[in-house]
Amino acid sequence: MSGIKIVVIGGGSSYTPELIEGMIQNHASLPVSELVLVDIEEGLEKLLVIESLARRMFQKTGLDVRLNATLDRQKALRGADFVLSQIRVGGLPARRKDESVPLEFNLIGQETTGAGGFAKALRTIPVVLDICRDMEKICLGAWLINFTNPSGIITTAITRHSRIKCIGLCNIPINMERAITGLLGVDPSRVYCRFLGLNHLSFIRNVYLDGQDITKEILKRVAEDASIAENIPDIAWSTELIQSLGVIPSPYLKYFYHTRAMLEEEREALDAGRCRAREVMDIEKELFALYRDPGLEEKPAQLSQRGGAYYSEIALSLVDSIYNNTSEVHVVNTVNRGAVSDLPPESVVETNSVVNASGAHPLAAGPLPLTVRGLVQEVKAYEELTVEAAVSGSKKTALAALVNNPLVRDAEAARDLLDRIIENHPGYIHLT
Amino acid sequence: MSGIKIVVIGGGSSYTPELIEGMIQNHASLPVSELVLVDIEEGLEKLLVIESLARRMFQKTGLDVRLNATLDRQKALRGADFVLSQIRVGGLPARRKDESVPLEFNLIGQETTGAGGFAKALRTIPVVLDICRDMEKICLGAWLINFTNPSGIITTAITRHSRIKCIGLCNIPINMERAITGLLGVDPSRVYCRFLGLNHLSFIRNVYLDGQDITKEILKRVAEDASIAENIPDIAWSTELIQSLGVIPSPYLKYFYHTRAMLEEEREALDAGRCRAREVMDIEKELFALYRDPGLEEKPAQLSQRGGAYYSEIALSLVDSIYNNTSEVHVVNTVNRGAVSDLPPESVVETNSVVNASGAHPLAAGPLPLTVRGLVQEVKAYEELTVEAAVSGSKKTALAALVNNPLVRDAEAARDLLDRIIENHPGYIHLT
Amino acid sequence: MSGIKIVVIGGGSSYTPELIEGMIQNHASLPVSELVLVDIEEGLEKLLVIESLARRMFQKTGLDVRLNATLDRQKALRGADFVLSQIRVGGLPARRKDESVPLEFNLIGQETTGAGGFAKALRTIPVVLDICRDMEKICLGAWLINFTNPSGIITTAITRHSRIKCIGLCNIPINMERAITGLLGVDPSRVYCRFLGLNHLSFIRNVYLDGQDITKEILKRVAEDASIAENIPDIAWSTELIQSLGVIPSPYLKYFYHTRAMLEEEREALDAGRCRAREVMDIEKELFALYRDPGLEEKPAQLSQRGGAYYSEIALSLVDSIYNNTSEVHVVNTVNRGAVSDLPPESVVETNSVVNASGAHPLAAGPLPLTVRGLVQEVKAYEELTVEAAVSGSKKTALAALVNNPLVRDAEAARDLLDRIIENHPGYIHLT
Amino acid sequence: MSGIKIVVIGGGSSYTPELIEGMIQNHASLPVSELVLVDIEEGLEKLLVIESLARRMFQKTGLDVRLNATLDRQKALRGADFVLSQIRVGGLPARRKDESVPLEFNLIGQETTGAGGFAKALRTIPVVLDICRDMEKICLGAWLINFTNPSGIITTAITRHSRIKCIGLCNIPINMERAITGLLGVDPSRVYCRFLGLNHLSFIRNVYLDGQDITKEILKRVAEDASIAENIPDIAWSTELIQSLGVIPSPYLKYFYHTRAMLEEEREALDAGRCRAREVMDIEKELFALYRDPGLEEKPAQLSQRGGAYYSEIALSLVDSIYNNTSEVHVVNTVNRGAVSDLPPESVVETNSVVNASGAHPLAAGPLPLTVRGLVQEVKAYEELTVEAAVSGSKKTALAALVNNPLVRDAEAARDLLDRIIENHPGYIHLT
Repeated sequence: MSGIKIVVIGGGSSYTPELIEGMIQNHASLPVSELVLVDIEEGLEKLLVIESLARRMFQKTGLDVRLNATLDRQKALRGADFVLSQIRVGGLPARRKDESVPLEFNLIGQETTGAGGFAKALRTIPVVLDICRDMEKICLGAWLINFTNPSGIITTAITRHSRIKCIGLCNIPINMERAITGLLGVDPSRVYCRFLGLNHLSFIRNVYLDGQDITKEILKRVAEDASIAENIPDIAWSTELIQSLGVIPSPYLKYFYHTRAMLEEEREALDAGRCRAREVMDIEKELFALYRDPGLEEKPAQLSQRGGAYYSEIALSLVDSIYNNTSEVHVVNTVNRGAVSDLPPESVVETNSVVNASGAHPLAAGPLPLTVRGLVQEVKAYEELTVEAAVSGSKKTALAALVNNPLVRDAEAARDLLDRIIENHPGYIHLT
Repeated sequence: MSGIKIVVIGGGSSYTPELIEGMIQNHASLPVSELVLVDIEEGLEKLLVIESLARRMFQKTGLDVRLNATLDRQKALRGADFVLSQIRVGGLPARRKDESVPLEFNLIGQETTGAGGFAKALRTIPVVLDICRDMEKICLGAWLINFTNPSGIITTAITRHSRIKCIGLCNIPINMERAITGLLGVDPSRVYCRFLGLNHLSFIRNVYLDGQDITKEILKRVAEDASIAENIPDIAWSTELIQSLGVIPSPYLKYFYHTRAMLEEEREALDAGRCRAREVMDIEKELFALYRDPGLEEKPAQLSQRGGAYYSEIALSLVDSIYNNTSEVHVVNTVNRGAVSDLPPESVVETNSVVNASGAHPLAAGPLPLTVRGLVQEVKAYEELTVEAAVSGSKKTALAALVNNPLVRDAEAARDLLDRIIENHPGYIHLT
Repeated sequence: MSGIKIVVIGGGSSYTPELIEGMIQNHASLPVSELVLVDIEEGLEKLLVIESLARRMFQKTGLDVRLNATLDRQKALRGADFVLSQIRVGGLPARRKDESVPLEFNLIGQETTGAGGFAKALRTIPVVLDICRDMEKICLGAWLINFTNPSGIITTAITRHSRIKCIGLCNIPINMERAITGLLGVDPSRVYCRFLGLNHLSFIRNVYLDGQDITKEILKRVAEDASIAENIPDIAWSTELIQSLGVIPSPYLKYFYHTRAMLEEEREALDAGRCRAREVMDIEKELFALYRDPGLEEKPAQLSQRGGAYYSEIALSLVDSIYNNTSEVHVVNTVNRGAVSDLPPESVVETNSVVNASGAHPLAAGPLPLTVRGLVQEVKAYEELTVEAAVSGSKKTALAALVNNPLVRDAEAARDLLDRIIENHPGYIHLT
Repeated sequence: MSGIKIVVIGGGSSYTPELIEGMIQNHASLPVSELVLVDIEEGLEKLLVIESLARRMFQKTGLDVRLNATLDRQKALRGADFVLSQIRVGGLPARRKDESVPLEFNLIGQETTGAGGFAKALRTIPVVLDICRDMEKICLGAWLINFTNPSGIITTAITRHSRIKCIGLCNIPINMERAITGLLGVDPSRVYCRFLGLNHLSFIRNVYLDGQDITKEILKRVAEDASIAENIPDIAWSTELIQSLGVIPSPYLKYFYHTRAMLEEEREALDAGRCRAREVMDIEKELFALYRDPGLEEKPAQLSQRGGAYYSEIALSLVDSIYNNTSEVHVVNTVNRGAVSDLPPESVVETNSVVNASGAHPLAAGPLPLTVRGLVQEVKAYEELTVEAAVSGSKKTALAALVNNPLVRDAEAARDLLDRIIENHPGYIHLT
């Protein structure tokens, strides 16, 4: 490759300036020569705002990057080396439903786990597979870096139902790692965290400091610690739970282990008009107001509130490992191939993986700890059924998926909720 | 073996006359020459009533069986060929707590699944392992046929923590099979049901009639059908659920798939003073009144209401397969050894197995259907943690078990409930 | 089924009278109403001799069986319930080459294992898959009982490359069992032998007498014992070997563990004009002379020398288990499905299996004993490559198969031998 | 760690100057502060020669390394961070027997594979486990880097029978990689080779150039290529074989695929007095003459003929990855943990692994290619039996190991050879 062509699907996202900043900072090792921002009709206005800001940012640093913004995805994909996908099918209005409707059934409303994430997956999988169909025709050899949520399920759909090379990313693992490094007050190079599990359902099984396993000491401190994911409610972990599990859970696990408190919190937030979708809408409004300022030539500080800490860092360091064939270790979503021996080989897992030009290669981890094995296996079954439902359009399979989601499970609630989901997203979800 | 010596632990149970009847009916192929009924001090009175009735039943048929009733377990075990265990540690008063206390935490109270079964398991495992210790010293080669509930967990504890040869039994599979044969209106010899799963969490994956797989047709009829387990509340299955699962669930699965309705039912029953423990107490009172009648020389018809249909049939046909080395197929609880490929090889599973003098040999089944795989795996993790907690006495592990029970899962509810369980059974449960 | 229709492919075989006798003896439980003997043009004369003898045998016993002999396979298959396949593609002349040509390369010449069996498999697989194609069109629900050698490889080809329900049989396991029962001098009903492995590469891992594992005692006696397979040369087992393995090997294992002595024996036999193919030709000539005698109305005693002891017994008891849905245990070749955990689930294994109207269900056995695990795995790889080579016609894959055969392995010998095999069977083997 | 203490067991080896050179070159990232060379009484003279040369080498470069040579292993181990083991139990005279005795039985004589490697493993395992016992007492946290051959078997013995952290190394993989890079004429950073298998039985499944899988093209060129392991005879690969396997075999695989030619070669070499042990003796004599020269202050060029190309490079880069927690990928011998799904999780495999301060973590590879699966599995069984035999002292198990070695297999040859091996190494091998 002489220069790299990157295509960002969902380029009008408020996150994009973070990516631009990353491209600028990493230009020495990652010589991006062309960037295309793609979005859909409804996002045109935002897309143009972002394009304009990106142009100013590149210009300020004097980088020679060919920049384009377009609604024509197929054209954009020509000659692409990397495609970054960060779309939100149905936008924030759909997210609002994902978060609020389950509450009517006394169920967690969350946009990636639970019933909310289920609805989101059903809307998103067909759109993502459409993108893959385009890529298969236009740029089969390009890499698809997926940030679109629910990231593990989307990556599963892509790896199973397309020929596109794909790695799924999420910023939770790096946030957990940094939180631990912060707790320890040491240089990150001395710490090694061993992640196992699924996206938004992962665990650190071991924390090593200079090669010594210090997991037990860390466990004592995690319970007291503040949440490390700023976009989920800040319910405290049960100290006894953390000690019982013997592993460090992703903050998203609170939805599974503290369901009652989280449900209470969600209900109060909704009553108080505080739902996350609405908060995000407000933040976005503010951000775009800033972005429109023709004097702005760099990523504004306020963007960090948006919830995507380290987003650009992990995306670009992953692209770097592929482009430069570095064989460095990243925590990514990729096909299991026996790495986690209690999950099927063809499953997608979120775990430490070597990444180089030939792709992501998960490290063999052996069995899951018994304390979390069952939950991970149960959610994996839910994920596979969800992908199958979205691809086959089978309502029967969709119901089977929902009763396998530990945050739903009750068959009658599942059945009624499923009817509402189908009713609520007529353009997106077609199940029979 | 010249004649068979059978020892019944919990011999004073109201079920025993059914066993006696079975021994009489099967005497030709199963020549029982000695029967010892063992019980504990608190059960002495009932034990003597049963002994007396058994004596009359044997006398009426003229069988030459040496009969004894005793509180001295070690003496009873000498020379035993088969030991049948059907104990209830803590008796019906403990069962009442198992069924009512979880309701205070908004959790299912059921004596085999959910939090009730968990408390029961913690009380029972140490007692059963004591029996095994006695057997190891006194009759190492004897077979332990376990009916004690929760049967799968108890069988796990025995197979993992003793050297005693053990097979676990439950009458649910035969009831399900007979219900299906009844639906079809055909001779049982033409039907073959393929069971997979765990005790009180099993599924019929395939129903064959004359070798043809008719599962799909049966599924249509199961939803409409009345409950086939008379000792659980009669909530109707969701038709959509049955179709979605694609397999026929044990009636106990209603606790998992219709949790809300079952919880509602349990609460109403408790409010109305209708809890199952109390019902059973009343039935038992009535049965023992009958048993005391010196004119009674056979099993009274009322016993069938007690909930143990086919109990004697499956127990004795199992003993027959071992004693006569018949290699017939039974649905039992035994060590997996790869039979169900999604569960660890050392797990106990409830599945079709060949039984002969060398033991139970499960048939290889391959993977679990995706629609139920996750739930079975999750409950298996709960079961293993429960056994580990009971054996190690670790409260930490007990909490990990509870949060892995899909009928509990919430960490705070689990923690508070666990404290109550420990408090409620001071003589039986010791966790630190 | 009102009456059973059986079709025998290779009906003109000298073995057929044994089958006829079995049908007569088992008529009460297995009401055969129609029997069609099918053969090819070259076998017409023998076919008519057999048909005539069969007719006399049925007539003598007064059984009402509709009997036909035909060259028209498709017509014969109409309405078939069971198809028994016992063909020898290329006949005894081809067998002679299978047995003699490898010797020129200093390799074992044997018609089922080693290079001989390889050539035979390549000739036979396309013909057997042709039969399956016919069955798929004409009698899809019928059972194919395969005796055609190499039985394990042929069964693999059928289960992987057709939709026909198939069970593979071999009379070695029953011969081993009877030999052990004979050694013990007890009734077979008291003995249970646990078989693991592949066809002509199986082991008895455990011998139970009345449920007691007596394998160690049996091992001591096996080494001294005469061969239990009368159609392989009678080389004595190394006593040390049998003790080292800790399991009882099939007599065919002598080719693998005593290769040098067997090779010597084969060479001497060839020099002396004593090759097995020729012996069989002589026996057959004699047998057909007897069969032609219009006074003969039953199976002649001399047939037992032919090497197929218990052939009819195992074939018909298998058909009985299917027809009468008995769920009895047979040692058969069937798809592994996890039964032997060290072999792929889709492999064909020879092991104890429950057989009923829904098919053969292998018993879960866990891992292979370490002493024989590697050899079984290596031969399994050879078998899979052989099937792949025959189906794909790839000479490359055929070479890979041969170097994986522990009786060949040397790449140059394999390459040269492969050229000769292709050259020797121009009508049958097409590899490029 | 402030400065690193390295202990070399077998420090008097002619290879040691290469290690010293490596320590000098890598001192910036690997600050070795203390080096102890340990050897046994018989090697004292050589040890002192090496110590003296090492001292001159360090002095010339002005590095402040505390250097010692000693026969007191326990004292040497105090405070060790890394222990490098490169011993040869029995020395070159034993090697001579390993190479020549099997030839008398018409079997390959090679010091790492075949019967020679078997004898060597039996001699070496007890000695290596003695070293581990010392380390457990004196420097439990230190890393044992094992070069002692047969490296895979020795690493298996250590990981299974001690608590010492161990990684096994061999220079074959790096030689193969460099040979391929040389063929391609590209910078090594652009190439990624995926290794699978066992020590001296590994395969490159995929060669990637800039992320593109170019394995097929490489296969075409490998057959023509000269041997890439200078210490095994230079027999040409069969072109057809390489194409059939579809993977690139380690040069040691010639013993398995070209057994006849290798045996011929060995026999000729022995007749001509050209056995490798003797060659090595001559080279060593010459090297030590050079080492004794007080004017020599650096590694002499002649050392490269000795057969250990890249030895120092891989040893020190591995130590660097551990010491500096780099998480770089190395091809090492380590516990499988599911990485190669066709081998037991507790097996030792030679495969690409991430190495950091917490150890070696193999990358999940999924199943072995069918063309080589069986051979690898068979040799793995041989390796496990060999370790078991050495540890248990069971002659029975030793025989089982030999018949599982594809280069032996014949039971009678194995039995007789085993007797000879026991007879030949009375001080080292004790089997009953």
